Parts: sequence; structure tokens; C-alpha cells
Amino acid sequence: MKLLGIAAVDHGGSLGRASALFPHAPMPFVDLSTGINPHSYPLFDLPATILSRLPEAERLRELAGIAANAYGAPSAMHVAAAPGTQILLPRVASLVRPGKALVLGPTYAEHARAAAIAGHTAAEVGDFDALAEADLAVLVNPNNPDGRIVEREKLLRLAGELRARGGLLVVDEAFMDVGPAEHSLAGDVCAGGIVVLRSFGKFFGLAGMRLGFALADPLTAERLQAQLGPWAVAGPALEYGVRALADTEWQAGMRRRLAADAERLDALFGRYGVAVAGGTTLFRYLVLPEAAHLFSALGERGILLRHFAERPQVLRAGLPGTDEEWQRLESALAGWASRRDDALKEIGR
Amino acid sequence: MKLLGIAAVDHGGSLGRASALFPHAPMPFVDLSTGINPHSYPLFDLPATILSRLPEAERLRELAGIAANAYGAPSAMHVAAAPGTQILLPRVASLVRPGKALVLGPTYAEHARAAAIAGHTAAEVGDFDALAEADLAVLVNPNNPDGRIVEREKLLRLAGELRARGGLLVVDEAFMDVGPAEHSLAGDVCAGGIVVLRSFGKFFGLAGMRLGFALADPLTAERLQAQLGPWAVAGPALEYGVRALADTEWQAGMRRRLAADAERLDALFGRYGVAVAGGTTLFRYLVLPEAAHLFSALGERGILLRHFAERPQVLRAGLPGTDEEWQRLESALAGWASRRDDALKEIGR
Repeated sequence: MKLLGIAAVDHGGSLGRASALFPHAPMPFVDLSTGINPHSYPLFDLPATILSRLPEAERLRELAGIAANAYGAPSAMHVAAAPGTQILLPRVASLVRPGKALVLGPTYAEHARAAAIAGHTAAEVGDFDALAEADLAVLVNPNNPDGRIVEREKLLRLAGELRARGGLLVVDEAFMDVGPAEHSLAGDVCAGGIVVLRSFGKFFGLAGMRLGFALADPLTAERLQAQLGPWAVAGPALEYGVRALADTEWQAGMRRRLAADAERLDALFGRYGVAVAGGTTLFRYLVLPEAAHLFSALGERGILLRHFAERPQVLRAGLPGTDEEWQRLESALAGWASRRDDALKEIGR
Repeated sequence: MKLLGIAAVDHGGSLGRASALFPHAPMPFVDLSTGINPHSYPLFDLPATILSRLPEAERLRELAGIAANAYGAPSAMHVAAAPGTQILLPRVASLVRPGKALVLGPTYAEHARAAAIAGHTAAEVGDFDALAEADLAVLVNPNNPDGRIVEREKLLRLAGELRARGGLLVVDEAFMDVGPAEHSLAGDVCAGGIVVLRSFGKFFGLAGMRLGFALADPLTAERLQAQLGPWAVAGPALEYGVRALADTEWQAGMRRRLAADAERLDALFGRYGVAVAGGTTLFRYLVLPEAAHLFSALGERGILLRHFAERPQVLRAGLPGTDEEWQRLESALAGWASRRDDALKEIGR
């Protein structure tokens, strides 16, 4: 168990840092360092008043209803809408009085940081059962980066135990849009003691928009929304949220497309001897002894994966978007593999 | 002194509510219920990646530097950027441990609400000197809605007193873009114990964008930014902020234009016997016995002013934007005045 503080943490998705790391890489970078869908929801025009006027409270309520429907929450009253889930994390962690926060790790590092900001003693644990001792228990389901899934039944049991002594279970379902939906707790927030986080930007490929949701019992949802105040969600994010979350046809098609892309990516890695150990259809999880070398070799060729400073044998790879990106990944992998094979021959000689 | 809770408060700028209030008004409404500049900063195209990718940390730092320069803060390290100042209010109020929050009123009601959310006992006081007894003292400078200005010297003295016993002075300079700049505390945040709030959306006419800043000593600014987490500002807001806050030519021209518009508005009201009692060049403050009647009469003609439930003799009027809006306001005022004059004759008869 590792105690965690509030220092800023490292993330994927920064081209600024990538350029500093790989100054000679061919531009533009193929950024596979995030789990953001490269096939964004189609952009559409917005009237200028969406930018010039304050967002309407009524439109926010409409968005809450559509989000409840899309995510399977009981009603709009169970939804708080925010400019991204990130900004919600310390607020959600503050729903229980400062105590012991346990985060099921390894996972998205901001959870422990947010818990520490909220005054908790925050630690990561590797064992699900250890979460029962927490005042605030946090897990990501499916997990980032390994795709680990905790079953709904187990989660509900844990939530019941925590609730009985005033604790809170936070389930970050940032990647639950690509399933498995039967393990979502979105429909189970009524009883209290559970907050589910849903991210708009990842599945819809609009991370720059900043839109996210907390699903909770109505009192908690109202409390979170009050903390954010009126106009928490920007006009453009409101409009995209209302349209995209109601577009079940696009969503179903995109789930199929991402599943096919993920399969294609696994096959591509497999061809070069890199086995995929898990993930979701928005990102794949690679475990290999030469991970650090693969990260650098691809980086120098302008392909960014996500590496993790403290786990040098692990990588995460998002999906390429265009044919060109697939080709650049393939040729970078081929280049890396041939150098590796040469090196192995060298050793064998 | 009135104790204030955390219930939602009423605001201007909602067309939904306006339609419910004035169902037979000619559409569209001329919305003068806010202090938002009707002449928005010119819209420009953004690459799709601004929406699809996570905002870059480097760009946020650049924005902080440009904002420091535009507002007169000592450096980028003294700036925390947020998706609107609104979302900062409870965070800023939480910088001091729960105690006595005093807000110089009457003013923007969200300050007291945010202080209550942060656990303070929040009250409005009418007298500046009373603020010295607070743990958290809040005022809006220039004030909304009456335009009252508190001089920098007085503010610095108050800040010194509060600081000496661990208190905090929050100055909301939401309308300071239109001056008087010599009374801004933006350059005085180094010493600590002062947080200055600056709003992007009002002066630049882009309220739907959600962008605002806290200026503070570097430790406090960093703490606020950490609370908001990475990617606090959406991609489009980042890009508009970077461009518009650096565009000093547009800003200077706009200040002149708003001053001329405000003068024109005062003259128009004066022509119909409505004296303007204060305000800034982004909104005018009207005090008249028949305020409630004027509000309704204009509302029925599709012109929305801001009224205040608890002060029936007061109205706030934003600036019309287009020639058509000016004309509709003028003819609505003329209609109201002729009915009023008829009624007066009736009484005189």
C-alpha cells in the first residue's frame, strides 16, 4: 500500500511533452497515448449565441435527462453535469468526511490525488477486498490501463458495506461506453453511497469539449450540481452532449467499429510478437519486457504510446484513426522488430 | 445583516424564464438582463483537433501568462484559469477555514451562496467597514448592479487587516475590464490574503465559452489550479482566451464603444424620465418607484431588463447590440411612457 499525495501526475495526450521527448520524430505525431476515440462524433455548426450567451438552465436539465437515458441512470435528478469528470473528482471525494481513501490500483492516478486534495489519506491497493476498509473506495471499471472488470454483484456488495457505515463507493466508468454494460452501476445509484462517473469526451472523441457526469442519488447529485454552480457546462458542450448522447444509432455503429479496430490492432501487434494483455476497445494494454525500448523506438518514429514511469514493462496503446496512421504504426513496428531481431541474432552468434 | 443559505439564486440571462414570464411578447427577446457585452469578440475558426484532443498543458500556461499581462497580475504564476469564475467561488471560499463570511451587498448573490457551500456562516453587510470583522470578506468592484467603486487604498488596508489574522479578501472584478483600472487589486496579490476574480465572458461577450481567472499569490494560485485538475479549460475557451486577451487594440476600441453606448442608453432612458443612478459601461443601474411596472411593460414588448425580487425599485439594463434592438427599446419605452403619462393625467383630472 502506497501513500499518495497531491503532486501533479503524468498523463498521456500531451504533444508538447512528446516533442520534448522525441525532438527528431517525423511530424505530425500519431498520438496513441490516450484512450480517446479517434473517430470523433461528427462536428456541426452552432449559432453564435451558443458562445455569446450564458448557457440556459433549461438546456442543462434537458442534457441531464438525455444523459440519464444514455447511461442508464434512473432519471435526470440522478445526474450532475460538469465541465469534464476531472473537475468533479475532489468534489466527489469531499462527499465523505476526511478519512481513509483506497483506490483499486494500478489505475488512473488522478483519483488518489483528488482524494488527497479532499483531505483523505489516500492509498492504492491491489486487492479488491481491501476496499471494504475504506471510507472512500474508488475504482475504475473497466479499469484503465489494463481493462480489468469488476462484476456488478461484487460492487453492489461493497457499496452496501460502505454505505452501512457512512462510506462511499466511487466507480469511474470513463470507458464503460464500450462495455460491458451489464457491470455498470449507473442504474444502482438510487440507494445512495454510490457515485458513478461518466466521461463524454473519450467515447465521443471530443476530449477538448470538457463534459462529464456524476450519477448519484438525487440529493448527492443536487449537492454536486450546486457546488459547480449555474452555467457549469459551456454552451458548445451542452449542444454536443444533447445531440450525441441521444444519437443511439451512431453509438451502436461506433461500438462495432471500435471493436473491429481493436481486433485489428491486436493482430498488428501480434504480427510483431507483441501480445496484448487486456484493455478496452478504446485502448489496448501491452505487457512485455522490452516495453521501454518499444516506447522509445516508436516515439522516435513519431508514434506515441503511453508508458508508466513506475511500471516499465507496461504500455497502453490507443487506436489509430486514419489509414495513414495505421500504416505509420505498422512500419514503425516493423522497423523496431527488425532491429530487435538483428540484436537477437547478434546475441545468438 | 441577513444570513444566507445555499439555495439556488435567481439570475438574468435566461430566455426560458423570460418566455414563461412574458408568453405573449414579440420574439426574439431583446435581452438586456445581463451585463454581457453584446459586441462579442470576433468569432474565428478552430481546427477540429481543438475539440477532439485534450487541451495542452503548455497552452494553459501560455494563457495564464497572457491573462496576467492583460489584467495586470505580477506573472503567470499568480493566475489560475478556470471554466468560468462561478465554479471557482466555493473553491476560493474554502481557502480559509469555515468561519464568518461577509459580503458587501447588495451584490451578485452567488458569493454568499458559495461561502455557505464552503461551510461559512455567510451574511451580507451594507457597510464596507463591517467587512473587517470577517474571516472571508467578499466584494464586487465595480459592484454589480449599482457600479459602486471601492478605492484601492481602502481595499489594501482591509486586506492587510484580514491577512494579519489569517483572513482573506476576495475582490470580484468581473466588470473591471471597463475600469476604473486604478482601483484593481490585480497587481497587489503578491502579499497573499487577496484573491481577485476576473471574468472573460462578460467584456468579450462570450459568456457561453466559460472562462475565468483567479489572481492570487503563487501558492494559492497553484492550489486553486490543482483543485481544478488538468484540462480545466476547454480547448475553444483556451484558444479564444489566448487570442482575445492579447488583442489590446480590440480591447481599447471596445472600451470606447461601450462608453459611447452607455452614454446613449442613459440619454434614451432620460428622454422618458428614467434617471440612471449608476452602473458600469456594461450595464446601467436604474432606481425608480415604478421599476416593477417598467420591467413588466418592457417585458411584454419583448425587452428584458433585470429586476431583483427583494428590491422592487431597482432595475439593471444591459446594452442593446443592434440598431433594431435600440429601436425596439426606444419604442417600448415610448409606449410605456405614454401609458404612464395618460395614467398621470387620469389622476390629475
